[in-house]
Amino acid sequence: MKLRVRDVDLSAGGNLVVIISRADASLLDAFAGDRVLVKNSAARKETTAVIDIDVENKRIKKGEIGIFEELLRLLEVKDKDLVDVTYTGHPKSLQYIKDKLDGKRLSESQIREIVNDIVKNKFSDKELTYFVSGCYTKELSLKEAAYLTKAIVDSGNKLFFKAKFVLDKHCVGGIPNNRTTMIVTPIIASLGYIMPKTSSRSITSPAGTADTMEVLAPVDLSHNKISDVIKKSNACIVWGGSMNLAAADDYLIRVRHPLSLDPEGMLLASILAKKKAVGATHVMIDIPYGYQSKFSSFKEAKKIGRKFVALGKLLKMKVRVVYTDGSQPVGRGIGPTLEATDVLSVLKGGGPKDLREKSIFLATEMLKMIGVKHAEDKVLDSLDTGKAYKKFLQIVELQGGKRKITLQYAKYSKEIKSKKTGHVIIINNKGISKIARIAGAPEDKAAGLYLRAKKGEIVKKGQVLFTVYSESKEKLESALKAVSDSETFVIGNLPKSYFNRFNLFKRN
Amino acid sequence: MKLRVRDVDLSAGGNLVVIISRADASLLDAFAGDRVLVKNSAARKETTAVIDIDVENKRIKKGEIGIFEELLRLLEVKDKDLVDVTYTGHPKSLQYIKDKLDGKRLSESQIREIVNDIVKNKFSDKELTYFVSGCYTKELSLKEAAYLTKAIVDSGNKLFFKAKFVLDKHCVGGIPNNRTTMIVTPIIASLGYIMPKTSSRSITSPAGTADTMEVLAPVDLSHNKISDVIKKSNACIVWGGSMNLAAADDYLIRVRHPLSLDPEGMLLASILAKKKAVGATHVMIDIPYGYQSKFSSFKEAKKIGRKFVALGKLLKMKVRVVYTDGSQPVGRGIGPTLEATDVLSVLKGGGPKDLREKSIFLATEMLKMIGVKHAEDKVLDSLDTGKAYKKFLQIVELQGGKRKITLQYAKYSKEIKSKKTGHVIIINNKGISKIARIAGAPEDKAAGLYLRAKKGEIVKKGQVLFTVYSESKEKLESALKAVSDSETFVIGNLPKSYFNRFNLFKRN
Repeated sequence: MKLRVRDVDLSAGGNLVVIISRADASLLDAFAGDRVLVKNSAARKETTAVIDIDVENKRIKKGEIGIFEELLRLLEVKDKDLVDVTYTGHPKSLQYIKDKLDGKRLSESQIREIVNDIVKNKFSDKELTYFVSGCYTKELSLKEAAYLTKAIVDSGNKLFFKAKFVLDKHCVGGIPNNRTTMIVTPIIASLGYIMPKTSSRSITSPAGTADTMEVLAPVDLSHNKISDVIKKSNACIVWGGSMNLAAADDYLIRVRHPLSLDPEGMLLASILAKKKAVGATHVMIDIPYGYQSKFSSFKEAKKIGRKFVALGKLLKMKVRVVYTDGSQPVGRGIGPTLEATDVLSVLKGGGPKDLREKSIFLATEMLKMIGVKHAEDKVLDSLDTGKAYKKFLQIVELQGGKRKITLQYAKYSKEIKSKKTGHVIIINNKGISKIARIAGAPEDKAAGLYLRAKKGEIVKKGQVLFTVYSESKEKLESALKAVSDSETFVIGNLPKSYFNRFNLFKRN
Repeated sequence: MKLRVRDVDLSAGGNLVVIISRADASLLDAFAGDRVLVKNSAARKETTAVIDIDVENKRIKKGEIGIFEELLRLLEVKDKDLVDVTYTGHPKSLQYIKDKLDGKRLSESQIREIVNDIVKNKFSDKELTYFVSGCYTKELSLKEAAYLTKAIVDSGNKLFFKAKFVLDKHCVGGIPNNRTTMIVTPIIASLGYIMPKTSSRSITSPAGTADTMEVLAPVDLSHNKISDVIKKSNACIVWGGSMNLAAADDYLIRVRHPLSLDPEGMLLASILAKKKAVGATHVMIDIPYGYQSKFSSFKEAKKIGRKFVALGKLLKMKVRVVYTDGSQPVGRGIGPTLEATDVLSVLKGGGPKDLREKSIFLATEMLKMIGVKHAEDKVLDSLDTGKAYKKFLQIVELQGGKRKITLQYAKYSKEIKSKKTGHVIIINNKGISKIARIAGAPEDKAAGLYLRAKKGEIVKKGQVLFTVYSESKEKLESALKAVSDSETFVIGNLPKSYFNRFNLFKRN
């Protein structure tokens, strides 16, 4: 059926939805939630979309099709153009989703078909939610997780290297700052090893590694450009999304969000797919645990750690896991520019002690994985002689940033002071993140906050605990309101031994 | 935060969604999918809504809130009005949904809270989908199903009667036509018993009982009007939706649709809640089974049948189950007016044999449930002396229809003829329904088709199998295309004994 495009002048938030009149829905024998194939023959563009029915015929009349921003662009159509619409029925793989809910094991080809249909937008959010539910309640076997990983890898672009060792790392779980990637990558690269690092942008945090790197250089590079940067410098620090790596994964993340539902097999597949796609041979997984972390005990963290190693084997990647302290932010800045400040300080030989120590630990363990002797000495040498910093500046420049770095700080700021004297017992990770976000991070690069005290330190009444930064008075005020609404710092008196009982880093 | 309403001039298909700018989302620290409370203080109206973010700021600017048709009406606001928007966080009951996915048993108060939040629109479709998934994969115990039923009953309006017996019936599963309700109800009422029948409109079929009854009388009556009709005639045949019975159920049905996922406990709760809400004491459940039915074997049908009886006990209702032939349409007309034709014929003492026999069987079994002696004789007497027909006309008139019934038939029609001679072995229920829908049913009351042959009958080459009716040439053509695309009748030669091996009706 030919229908005339109505630009509904809205974006649909990622869903490919079209709106048709009840009369046309009836002719197609289609219901809300069913799928149609929409074709723009002139530009040879087509896509599957889920239909919504304008029951009240308020805006979409018979003969018209309401199209949202995303789809207009995809189909290269504009208001009043004609498109061809046909009913497509359910994709066959919808039955496999039902099978999974019924507890059946899926075959490699069934999982591959589901993932292909995900990328082709053939499922509605409800149907994808059913897939996530099935993987959660009936669990994925290690084999199914491997099939899923491979299918996700094949759903997007890949990188290839001839080198014997291609290194990568990943941290599971949102500890504020924790920007070790931007320090470890230039250390590894300065020692002659390849590390094609792709990172994510923030979803619910004040900054992802990609947001922080973006303060210094573009991170949204083409596939060719990335290859070129790596060829010249051994490494890159870019946004994964720009490469269209592991494309299917983004769809699944969107429906996992509402219940923070992370089916273990999907979590493993999602992470390792991105490593496999860049051609990694050796992968370091950092699992923070403890109070305020995703994994509350070492035991829990180890349970998933072992599965990373096992799945790595099936995927022919060597995986090593380290378990680290997840009880407070690592570093002191929260928000892209403030986190970049910490990273640059560490690369210049100073910076927050915990961020420096954790980065040295991770880089050392990664080098040990590939059999490098005197690994820690080499890491310290790279950092302390400025080799790592020089390498970082090279990467920044190759990605299109300026070699001479100058950071822009926020227009407005406010110091938050302690109401009593005592030890800092708890820094509330969630509260800290919320304040930084309301202050404007990550959209406003310079917004966020800077911690002037960390866990275990003694603060005096009236001493500054942290400073909030914002680009607008309104946002600063909203952030300050959030400060007074939540207990971000817990101050009290505890023996010093209390703070020593945690082992910061453990190996598997 | 105060925001200015933008009427987005679309309906959102039942979801209560609002659109805000990225800037305002950031100030609220809200993400797409989060909930806000939207208040119109002037009219004292408020509701929870799920937010979508206009990432591209294409239409919704900072300070504005995009509102769809449904919500404009609910809040009594119009374009440019000011509303108050606050972030509300997750409803507490979202954790119970996660608990269910984790296999926990839910308490009565937890289930009640989930259902209350459903009716208050506090969940997104994804979250509701997770609830359905949990009930499907981890199953509801009989107790949980009873809690769910009671909570659904209390989420809407109810009817009360002082009578000792209040009868009701329900058929599980979509057999075309099968309009026994419109025959059984006046029979029961003519014998002096109360039967407050509420029925559904079609969701995916060519007609529901409410659509068919609507050909003869309004079915969308107020609570008061319904009570009055029942008081005067012992019965009614109305649309359940108009009474806002079991309000929570409609939300759940919407998310169960995509995978045709009917968690057993939810299916039971959904059906029995509607019976409990009208005050039924004795309920007859009709479960068609066999090829083309929801339940493919008698064993499967019996399994669910027993649960209806057990759940009925927990709800203090007497439930009896009958198992019937679901292998072909019951009656001959498909589509509201054509089905009404069959109903009127049976009430006048003629009509399709299968529809008459099934109605007599059901009415007899219902009377036996409440201890009526010589039940079948009484049913036959009511039908054959015209008492049931008279009662039906009284109900039609009380509901606002005309006592003198004249049916309007469709403008266009086309006879479909057999291409060979033989027995009718299969009538494809789905194919038949699809054709009737494309012809215009149920929106066009007179559209649909009329079967001129039924299973087991011998047809000659060139003999008419069915007639398609439509109100427009375009719809008729589309329907005829669907006829040629699918095999609606399977004609072949089989011994007559083949057709006798099915027992039409079974009691539990």
